[in-house]
Amino acid sequence: MPQPTALPHAPLSGLTRLVAHLGVPTRSFTAPRILNPWFAAEGIDAAVVPLGCGPADFPTFLPQVLRLSNVLGALVTMPHKATAAGLAARLGPMAAVCGACNVVRLSADGAVEGEMFDGAGFVHAAGTGAVAGRTGLVVGAGGVGAAIAAALADAGAARLILSDVDAARARALAARLTAAGWRAEVGPPNAAAAQFAVNATPLGMAAGDPMPFDPAALPPGALVGDVVLGAGRTPLLRAADAAGCATVDGEEMLLAQLPACLAYLGLPVPPPGTLRRPPPPDV
Amino acid sequence: MPQPTALPHAPLSGLTRLVAHLGVPTRSFTAPRILNPWFAAEGIDAAVVPLGCGPADFPTFLPQVLRLSNVLGALVTMPHKATAAGLAARLGPMAAVCGACNVVRLSADGAVEGEMFDGAGFVHAAGTGAVAGRTGLVVGAGGVGAAIAAALADAGAARLILSDVDAARARALAARLTAAGWRAEVGPPNAAAAQFAVNATPLGMAAGDPMPFDPAALPPGALVGDVVLGAGRTPLLRAADAAGCATVDGEEMLLAQLPACLAYLGLPVPPPGTLRRPPPPDV
Repeated sequence: MPQPTALPHAPLSGLTRLVAHLGVPTRSFTAPRILNPWFAAEGIDAAVVPLGCGPADFPTFLPQVLRLSNVLGALVTMPHKATAAGLAARLGPMAAVCGACNVVRLSADGAVEGEMFDGAGFVHAAGTGAVAGRTGLVVGAGGVGAAIAAALADAGAARLILSDVDAARARALAARLTAAGWRAEVGPPNAAAAQFAVNATPLGMAAGDPMPFDPAALPPGALVGDVVLGAGRTPLLRAADAAGCATVDGEEMLLAQLPACLAYLGLPVPPPGTLRRPPPPDV
Repeated sequence: MPQPTALPHAPLSGLTRLVAHLGVPTRSFTAPRILNPWFAAEGIDAAVVPLGCGPADFPTFLPQVLRLSNVLGALVTMPHKATAAGLAARLGPMAAVCGACNVVRLSADGAVEGEMFDGAGFVHAAGTGAVAGRTGLVVGAGGVGAAIAAALADAGAARLILSDVDAARARALAARLTAAGWRAEVGPPNAAAAQFAVNATPLGMAAGDPMPFDPAALPPGALVGDVVLGAGRTPLLRAADAAGCATVDGEEMLLAQLPACLAYLGLPVPPPGTLRRPPPPDV
């Protein structure tokens, strides 16, 4: 029989344990295309199912989805990460600092609980050794910037410089990190002071965007991360390559966080390096 | 890579159009295991996704599911068929007589609309020629019995005898059919008067159940239908075989209704005989 794509497909029956993937639009969802082939290859009867839920429905829809008899939990993405944290009765330490979560589940007592793994993805992909005891620059203090800053602090970064065009937003994030016992300060996007630097803004999604920072200013051996997904090798990453920096791209961050997300949902955990980047979507 | 089952699997990405399959428990759901392999074989990027929704959530969950950006509609099964009809702003002719529907969709103006295809499945599987102009016995005047009786009347059955241990329920169904312009009467489960007879009760699911009617009493060339699913060849069907009757089993009724359900949801329609019975579940 002809197959519509080269991917092995997720099985789906009444026995399949589902992970709801909530966000809108669903077009660019990547986790189903990474995890479902792995489930199929491993004989794990589970599937990540994209559900394109809009903001008006999300606050009632999320708790109902978690109560479905065959659902293990949910991956939460744009534009619901902050709303999800507000709906959770309990938040993990990263989600508490970020005020956002990207994985939710029902606890044994029926309460919604959530955690934020976006930052862990960057730390895992970079390697703890690349950030512990070092100074880092995080440009963008929104949801993903907060997640990355919190995970960097948790991983032992010595000093974090937070930069945002909205200075108040950067100050608020620094205050939340400081309140959680970590060291963070607000500053300009000056890469010269940093041993690693992360773009946590959308800059690089559109042609002609300015650089969030100049990777050529980083000291030798520094590392550059870029959260921008689906744009291929961004101008920032190409400049980092030219400057001789190690890099972590958005897809690597996503791949690196998925094992922790699966563990949080009670699913088997793939060994590091097992999950594969998906082929480009058939659009 | 090893495959967990012999079935081709449904693709699942953010571009996949979903058909929600709502009911609880999901364990015995059959439609995903029939339709998803066909979608995969045909290269149709669609999937039937079982969602184990309980009765308390269903009235709010169903409209939200229909509003998801990537959902085409829903198949509705136990215990929600009557509730779904109550939630629909518009019902098709079969659903209106039954007070229940098993497929729902959002109309172009955003209203929930539903229809009941359970009866059409029996008529299609039996063949219109086996019922038009003939006298039939339907035992069981609940949801599925009502659906079958309405579809039989619509297909031109000359006379329908409705039988139920709850005589008031049978009378109420006869009254609804009569009000819709069809001919139906209440009577004992006497197969001798009928040219076809259908079991629309759960009798046959449990070992030791009495027969809903005696197929040996039917005239030569008569047809026996049995809605009981998942019990293999029921005692009624084995007795019908022994009496030389043609038969239609529950799985044939399900297979035969699916093309009409897909058309209602705007999906491609498999030619008759294309859909296959699924293998037994891996339990």
